[in-house]
Amino acid sequence: MMNGNDENKISIKRIAELSGVSPATVSRVINNNGRFSEKTRRRVMKVIRENNYGMNYVAKSLRMKKSFTIGVLVPDISNAFFSSVVLRMEKYLYSKGYSVIICNTDRDEHKEMAYLRTLEGKMVDGLLIISGDQEFDTSVIQTQTLTVCIDRKPKNTENAVFISSDHYHGGLLATETLIKQGCKKLGIIISHENLYSSKERLRGFKDALEKNGLTCNPNRIIKINDKETKPEEVKLHVLKSFRDGNLYDGIFAVNDRLAFGTMKACQDFGWKVPENVKIIGFDDDPLCTYSSPSLSSVKQDIDQLAKVSCDILLKLINSEMMTSTEKCQMIPTSIILRESV
Amino acid sequence: MMNGNDENKISIKRIAELSGVSPATVSRVINNNGRFSEKTRRRVMKVIRENNYGMNYVAKSLRMKKSFTIGVLVPDISNAFFSSVVLRMEKYLYSKGYSVIICNTDRDEHKEMAYLRTLEGKMVDGLLIISGDQEFDTSVIQTQTLTVCIDRKPKNTENAVFISSDHYHGGLLATETLIKQGCKKLGIIISHENLYSSKERLRGFKDALEKNGLTCNPNRIIKINDKETKPEEVKLHVLKSFRDGNLYDGIFAVNDRLAFGTMKACQDFGWKVPENVKIIGFDDDPLCTYSSPSLSSVKQDIDQLAKVSCDILLKLINSEMMTSTEKCQMIPTSIILRESV
Repeated sequence: MMNGNDENKISIKRIAELSGVSPATVSRVINNNGRFSEKTRRRVMKVIRENNYGMNYVAKSLRMKKSFTIGVLVPDISNAFFSSVVLRMEKYLYSKGYSVIICNTDRDEHKEMAYLRTLEGKMVDGLLIISGDQEFDTSVIQTQTLTVCIDRKPKNTENAVFISSDHYHGGLLATETLIKQGCKKLGIIISHENLYSSKERLRGFKDALEKNGLTCNPNRIIKINDKETKPEEVKLHVLKSFRDGNLYDGIFAVNDRLAFGTMKACQDFGWKVPENVKIIGFDDDPLCTYSSPSLSSVKQDIDQLAKVSCDILLKLINSEMMTSTEKCQMIPTSIILRESV
Repeated sequence: MMNGNDENKISIKRIAELSGVSPATVSRVINNNGRFSEKTRRRVMKVIRENNYGMNYVAKSLRMKKSFTIGVLVPDISNAFFSSVVLRMEKYLYSKGYSVIICNTDRDEHKEMAYLRTLEGKMVDGLLIISGDQEFDTSVIQTQTLTVCIDRKPKNTENAVFISSDHYHGGLLATETLIKQGCKKLGIIISHENLYSSKERLRGFKDALEKNGLTCNPNRIIKINDKETKPEEVKLHVLKSFRDGNLYDGIFAVNDRLAFGTMKACQDFGWKVPENVKIIGFDDDPLCTYSSPSLSSVKQDIDQLAKVSCDILLKLINSEMMTSTEKCQMIPTSIILRESV
């Protein structure tokens, strides 16, 4: 933390002695990262002022070392899953002495680039990049900011670190649950096809069918436009497939929002859930317990996903050794059964 | 934007000329605020390097003027209402050329202070402070960072700017709606009593009763501990009040989460909604359409709340004149009627 040049080292140490606090606390006060009392701040600042230590110089050289700030890029904080992950990351990192600044990228490539630059400009120690539409090209990061990609495959995998829920296994699990309950005419509702997580969930669906000797009927793959994922919009798409004469007795929706739209479509079409059609979603949104019938869903281990991602980033920041297994981790998913199956 | 000293002015102007872009774009590139193409960035940086313009000096002096970054403090981004407000603010400010960095304060006073310092340290041009438990003491802001308080009363009202939904009127509206539908034994479920918004909603409830010649029975004011606001926890508290023999025919819940818990309690107790008890929530959470029965709720005008708050902050940043009416605005609420009444 204080491996600057000697002149600087002595200043910090001296300021610490004169203020009666640790050098780490002096660093925090100068970096304005907030983990100190107002009283401490006043004392340290007084010492700096009285001894003409050159606040700007000290601050600048220290900041180039460590800012105790972590930046988080999230595609959509109004999404319950993303906001839960970010919240847990924030709490965990804060408990470790870091401030977390969050930027919302709106799934917009240009905006994402803009915020990457903003965070680099704010001299964060590391970045947590959650999801997004394409594979993430880590070379766009101009500075040497340390980065962990969550739920999103980095393009250049050698150096990048990648933590994700096991979406493939989640898709497999959901589909096998439907099959075990006797479903034979299985369909899938999918949006955001370019997302790594969507692709993996679809792959799990297909593999489960194959493993159980069922064919994957392309007419029962309902693709929803990324801009039309509101329940009412989804309902119309699903109803269209019903009206076109496609039969279903089990539907796996790659996320809960799609599942809710699907349930609405079943209601409108006169198909009872779960009697006629069984439905499983993904994400275990708080909504699942409120819908009627309540929705079965694949649950991601948000706590673990957040904790593992943060721990790896902190290891990177502290230049700790890491195995290649640690650099690429899949967090297991589970299934929560409710009335919809 | 570029009212620095003359030497600096000339540099920026000259860099702009040599790069073939506007001075504003040069400023953006140097500030790393992202609203420019990678091609532009390369061109500008090349000019700066080739002419020895002293990037650090230019950057520093420019940064002291404007960072094109706005900080947002939010108590809990996993709350649907807060995340919607923040999302809209972000989109609006981004369209105006600003980056938005968001910090989650967890309704924790110390954390709030820490993040205030972090944001000050990151040299934001202005702050949007959303809600929180106490009145906000603007004097804790060390630097001259411009601040707009949203849904939270500032302590020192002369200088502070305060934008809020009209919570009082929302509470009044909800209660009068219940009364118009024939309810006479009205109750209220309340949590976070110290919040400005909760207080105002309660005041609206009480005034509506008084206006309509009904008494406010203190046994029908169910107070929920701030740490126990999950639907299952709320249900237990409400059930207790039911079992204690308190009768209700209409309940106003000061937020939708409490309303959902209340609906669960009615279900468990064998009271039908809306036949036996009518319920109205607050916030118009997306959940409202999914619950069974669907929940009537007071809707805040999130778009307007976000837009007005951002516009006022931008006015402050640009040193525009402002009337005292502009400095303190109440955004009207409306009621969305669904099956629960």
